[in-house]
Order: sequence, then C-alpha cells, then structure tokens
Amino acid sequence: MERCIGIVGPGLIGGSMAIDLRRRGFGSYFLGVEKEGVNASAALHMGIIDEAVSLEECAERADIVILAVPVGTACNMLPIILDIFAANLASNPDRLQLVMDTCSTKAGITAAAESHPLRGHFVPSHPMAGTEYSGPWAAQPSLFDGRACIIADPEKSEAWAVECVSELYSCLNMRLLEMDSKAHDMHTAYVSHISHVTSFALALTVLDKEKDEKHIFDLASGGFTSTVRLAKSNADMWVPILAENKENLLQAIDTYLNRMQQFRDAIASGDENSIRELINESNRIKRILR
Amino acid sequence: MERCIGIVGPGLIGGSMAIDLRRRGFGSYFLGVEKEGVNASAALHMGIIDEAVSLEECAERADIVILAVPVGTACNMLPIILDIFAANLASNPDRLQLVMDTCSTKAGITAAAESHPLRGHFVPSHPMAGTEYSGPWAAQPSLFDGRACIIADPEKSEAWAVECVSELYSCLNMRLLEMDSKAHDMHTAYVSHISHVTSFALALTVLDKEKDEKHIFDLASGGFTSTVRLAKSNADMWVPILAENKENLLQAIDTYLNRMQQFRDAIASGDENSIRELINESNRIKRILR
Repeated sequence: MERCIGIVGPGLIGGSMAIDLRRRGFGSYFLGVEKEGVNASAALHMGIIDEAVSLEECAERADIVILAVPVGTACNMLPIILDIFAANLASNPDRLQLVMDTCSTKAGITAAAESHPLRGHFVPSHPMAGTEYSGPWAAQPSLFDGRACIIADPEKSEAWAVECVSELYSCLNMRLLEMDSKAHDMHTAYVSHISHVTSFALALTVLDKEKDEKHIFDLASGGFTSTVRLAKSNADMWVPILAENKENLLQAIDTYLNRMQQFRDAIASGDENSIRELINESNRIKRILR
Repeated sequence: MERCIGIVGPGLIGGSMAIDLRRRGFGSYFLGVEKEGVNASAALHMGIIDEAVSLEECAERADIVILAVPVGTACNMLPIILDIFAANLASNPDRLQLVMDTCSTKAGITAAAESHPLRGHFVPSHPMAGTEYSGPWAAQPSLFDGRACIIADPEKSEAWAVECVSELYSCLNMRLLEMDSKAHDMHTAYVSHISHVTSFALALTVLDKEKDEKHIFDLASGGFTSTVRLAKSNADMWVPILAENKENLLQAIDTYLNRMQQFRDAIASGDENSIRELINESNRIKRILR
C-alpha cells in the first residue's frame, strides 16, 4: 500500500516516527510541515521527509496527518485539517483521511475537535517516549520501541481510524493502552509532568547556589545527572503542557510539596526514624519500576 | 608489590573497588569485614574478598583499610582502626598502614579522627560514583571510571598516605580533586544529596496517588524513571548522610522549595511567561552537563 504521511513538526517525535514508519514500510512518501526554514531544510537533508509543504497542502494530500507540534499549536491546526478533510470527502466520498496527534495532554486537543462533523477522523494519542532534546537533529530510530502509547477516547473516533492508528503504533513497537482523556491527563500529571517540574526546580536550585559552574561539572554524580536530565527540556513544548494540565498538576505539586516538607521537618529535627520511614516507603517504587 | 587490602563493607562501593583493584593489580589479597553472614558469604563466593575477618583482624593485617560502610558506622570504626595502627607502629616502626573512607559526608568522619595521634594515617575521600543498588551483588567492574573523587583536607594526612590513596584512585580511573571537608559537604548537598530527597519525595507522591500500581508501570516514561531512580536508594546508607549534612541540606531544600513554589504560583495563575522564564533559566544546566 502506498501511504502518504504528513508530519506536522518533523522534530524529535515526528521525525523519529517518520524514520521508523519509512524503514518498516508503513509509509512510502512523507510530507513535512515546518515553519522554521532551518528545521525544514534539515529534515529534508536528513531524509526524514520527502517534501516540505504548507499545512493546507499537507491536509490536502496526506492519508494520515500526524500532529507532532506543541499542544497549543496542535489545537489551532486540528480544525483547519478536519475542514480540509471534509471538503475532500465532499468531492470524493471514497477518500478516507485521518489525523492523529502526539500531545502530552489530551483535554485541549479533544475539545478542539469535539463538535467537528469529522471528529471521527481524528484519533487522539500520546506515544510516551522522548528524550530531553528537540528538533529534527534529535530524531532517532527505535525511539518508541517497547514504550507505552495511549489512545484517548477511542469510542469517539471511527473504528477504521482507530484500527489504522493502532497499526501505525504497532509498527513502532509500542504497547497500546486505551484510556479516556480525563484519566490520561490525571495519570500523566503524576508519572510524567511533575517530574519535569521537579527537574526544572532542581536545576534552578543548583544553578542558584553553584555560581562557579565548574564545580557542578566536576562533582555532578550520575544520580544528579539523571535527576536533572529533564531540566534540559524545551520551553516551547513544556509551557503549553504545564499550563493546560494545570488542575491535575497543582494537585500533584501540592502532594509533592507536602512530602518534601515532611523530609525537611524530619531532617531539621534530626528525627532519623522518620527519615528512615519516608525512605523505606519511597523504596516501594522498586517493586513497580524495573 | 604484595598489598593486602581490607574492605570494610564489601558491598556496592567496597566490592566494586575490590574488583578493579584486584584485576588491575593494585592489591593482591583482600580481607573483608562484613557483619551480615549472607553478604560475607556472597562476597567470598563471588571472589570479591579472599577471607572474611573481624574489624580488629583487618586493621591488624591490612596495609590499606577501606571504610565503605554507612557514615555513622564508619565514624565509630575509625578510632578503633587507628588505635590498632598505633599499636602496630609501636612494635614495628617501619609498618606504614593507612585507612581511607568513602563516605558521602566529610564533617563527621574527619571529626572522628581529628585529635587522634595517627590522624595523618587517615585519608578522607569520596569517590562520586554508585548506583541505586546495594550489597555485594551490586558490585561491578569499572564503576568508578571517569568519575570525580574528592580527597578532603589533604594537608591533615601524611604525604605518603595521600600519595598512596591518589594512586589507588588513579588505578580506578577517577578524576581527583582536593577540597576542604566543609566545602565538600556544601557542594555535595547541592549536586548529590538534595537530588536523593527530591527523588524520594517524587516516588512518595506518585505512590500516594497511583493506588493502582499497574498504571505507574504502564505509563512510566523514560523521563519519570530517570527522575525517580534514586528513590530506590537504601535507607541504611542515606539516613546518616541526610542527618549529618543537615545544615547544608536544609539550605538547599529551602532554595528548592522556593523554586517549586514559583512554578506552582506561575501554573496556578496561568502565567505562561513566568513558566517560560523559569524553564529557560533552568535550561542553562545544558551548558554544564553533557
């Protein structure tokens, strides 16, 4: 099957998808939508995309459009894409096109399509993989292998569209889960979003103190490096996520601040038993994570 | 040279040292001091140590004693070892023995030897390497390669002892730094100890919320896993470190809580500009860490 795939944002996520979907034969021609000229040139030069086009041309020509841009941008683009699909369908009733997103929050993007007549042609999804880098240079083969991917509110999408997106993610070797979008946003606040906030805050704390940056470089242990790694993450992607998932995130942050305060109190009062209990309790994470 | 090395605590740190010091020819015979019978048997069976002995026998026979036990235990053992060295030296003035520690805080261990007549035979050091695992089963070759190692207050140790310890760490391929013990404890509060506290608190936060542990397992992204990795760390090691480095750690925690509160406020008020500024500022950590 000759599938034309449109990658809106051929960066870390979109670019890595294109690499594997091409080499594993899921798609044969890749359109890219990228507003930054230097990124578009890099994506072309690296062979991630075959052609750089406008959003409208991409929605016109692609069988599958993948939105791999920050969530606010994706929300603005989604109705435009669905409108073009509707026009295509009006002139050719056999033309089946779908759009999927890869956003880390699901409330906004599902709301953006909620009342559209072609809502069923949209499949909200969240492949839970990534690195702290961004841009087409960050794209890499096998990024998604073995990781979890959530398809949100599958009952609101057409069955053929969910099936096609499931095939796509199976081709990326992802473990598929279905979840409603509200549950998705609550869980990701805890297992992904808050750990970015704690990393950002940790980096700021150390930068505040260690004016002589050489010391950080000299002394940073593997543990520190791994804890602070996410603080390299890009503001364009993370500002909209943190802003959109505000309610869940505030709950998570408040629980977290409370736990930090318990540590602070136990340390301040020299209460070694309480420190020990807190550590032992947190060690339960061992049973869950490999 | 036939060197007999005594490993007090042949676990992650002591065991990994023994493995590399043996295969790289720095030591030829390894005594182990280990109070847990199952750990001692494992260390023997794995060939990490050649013989399990008491602390006293170890201090009697070893040329170099390496204290690789939690800091509180190390503080209690250090004067006992130096007393035995003194007795050996009295009966044989050519007998040069040294003891070194590997503790993550330096205030307590240096105080424990401060007024001992053989203070010069003790070299306080901190090899900044490790994993979140413990016990002889966690010992591994090349754990220290390329990492930083601090020798604290070198002017208080005999020159021959510092030279010997420097050779030992060079044999482990570590980058050697000298620092006074106060500066050591301040820097490590920021680049190592606080990141353990934030990981413990993060694990507790997620465990509080995600009663259904399967969701954590399913959804945990690579970012979450790396941020929470240190929460697997062992209470026996970390309680004494957090308790001993109280003053520095409280300063670090307070700065950190302040930064977390800034994030919370910016998210709560939907102030995307402030979120962006905080993230951009924290991104400076990129220039420092590879």
